[in-house]
Amino acid sequence: MGGPRRLGIGFLWLNGRHYAPTVGFNGNRPPYAPARAATGTRATQETKSLTRVQLARMIDHTQVRANATQNDITELCEVAVKCGFAAVSINPVWTAFCAKRLQNTGVGVNPTVGFPLGANTARIKVEEARECVRNGATEIDMVINIGALKSGFPSFVEREIAAVVKGVQHVPVKVIIETSYLTTEEKIAACEMAKRSGAAFVKTSTGFGRAGATAEDVALMRQVVGGTLGIKAAGGIRSYADAVAMITAGATRIGTSTGVSILKEMPPEAARD
Amino acid sequence: MGGPRRLGIGFLWLNGRHYAPTVGFNGNRPPYAPARAATGTRATQETKSLTRVQLARMIDHTQVRANATQNDITELCEVAVKCGFAAVSINPVWTAFCAKRLQNTGVGVNPTVGFPLGANTARIKVEEARECVRNGATEIDMVINIGALKSGFPSFVEREIAAVVKGVQHVPVKVIIETSYLTTEEKIAACEMAKRSGAAFVKTSTGFGRAGATAEDVALMRQVVGGTLGIKAAGGIRSYADAVAMITAGATRIGTSTGVSILKEMPPEAARD
Repeated sequence: MGGPRRLGIGFLWLNGRHYAPTVGFNGNRPPYAPARAATGTRATQETKSLTRVQLARMIDHTQVRANATQNDITELCEVAVKCGFAAVSINPVWTAFCAKRLQNTGVGVNPTVGFPLGANTARIKVEEARECVRNGATEIDMVINIGALKSGFPSFVEREIAAVVKGVQHVPVKVIIETSYLTTEEKIAACEMAKRSGAAFVKTSTGFGRAGATAEDVALMRQVVGGTLGIKAAGGIRSYADAVAMITAGATRIGTSTGVSILKEMPPEAARD
Repeated sequence: MGGPRRLGIGFLWLNGRHYAPTVGFNGNRPPYAPARAATGTRATQETKSLTRVQLARMIDHTQVRANATQNDITELCEVAVKCGFAAVSINPVWTAFCAKRLQNTGVGVNPTVGFPLGANTARIKVEEARECVRNGATEIDMVINIGALKSGFPSFVEREIAAVVKGVQHVPVKVIIETSYLTTEEKIAACEMAKRSGAAFVKTSTGFGRAGATAEDVALMRQVVGGTLGIKAAGGIRSYADAVAMITAGATRIGTSTGVSILKEMPPEAARD
């Protein structure tokens, strides 16, 4: 079991039981092979080689406040199109509204299911996800049953992820594991279950938990899921520096409400377009 | 339009458009006739005439954290039975578990629907509420679509409340209006819609909003719904003094995770049993 920069079959063979409790992360070079995300965005070896367009295409422009109005959501969609963001992340009730506004724009519609507590039944999560897809969702973020995982029932969590993935068929599912509540072992188990269940992404946080994304968690998640799944970092990502830290650690998608200012902060030498 | 102590047909006739923006509240005597809650708990003129048993029967013992474990929920049920609380308030996934543990105890099972953001479709709220009832819920707390109300679509909110009430038939529904996001006019409109839709209670807050319950909001809600609906105050109620302030203002139910210490703080001269 080498350091974080040398991970291979032997590492994965350990099946999540003997990872080091913390993962060293100290460089600007990801400790794994570059990953290809579900959207085709490529996590480059050097973040500074990202163009502004590429960075925008990694951002899920997010508005999940309970009191968000129709005007807020309309503006969210308009800005997402203007900036070329990957998707808008919204609460489920706005799905059809956004789908109508975003058709033929290349911006995805990304509602959140079982959000933000994850303590709904699997059946309701599946129902909600399927309804979102009928209403035009192009991607689904779902929150795992954190309490079940903390109670020692991982198979419950695996079954619910698999049920949602199956329920929405071709639509990519991002599995929010809410890292701030989990031990390292639980983070690893959650990522492994998401991978086995056919999820497209694992995602760090809802933004409503004890804390948001950390580069350490992203690096750990990347080690566990390997190069085939996307990783969405979300929660507390407010600056270009935050975004770079997450991408460098292995994130292929950034969930944030401050994507506009993140793009603005991108230094000219980094942005080549 | 008199002060808060003299409200009658004329006040209600204004239909929520011309209430004073803030309602004076300065006494220990409710500015309305004592109400009978759905549980039969009677809000007495003087809170200090409440017995400890009566106070306990006004408390919904609450555990809605995302990371609550099965042990936490087991303990919640045991404490609720021991203390004689009205119900346990829980996330939906725990409904069947609590119903099994609480059968024949007199303690109700009170899951939260569309919780805590309220930004799910009405169809999913109804589905979730019906599933909760099938799993043994004796009361349902639901969060209104706050964004729809803020966007100027009150009829959307009224229809969803009516749909949930109809969907669960005989089971009492408590409608969470999340006061901290609402203007006075919106609070009034939400209470009127809940009353028209056949809700059993209006409830101040989820505990996840900008702020929790205030005595002023409870007093306003009591004025709007009159004496036939229950009022549940929740969010930030941590002490006996908090509970007394809410009950004095018109609350007939208290949602709190600190019911045990609230009962302990009850002074001997107040507790007659």
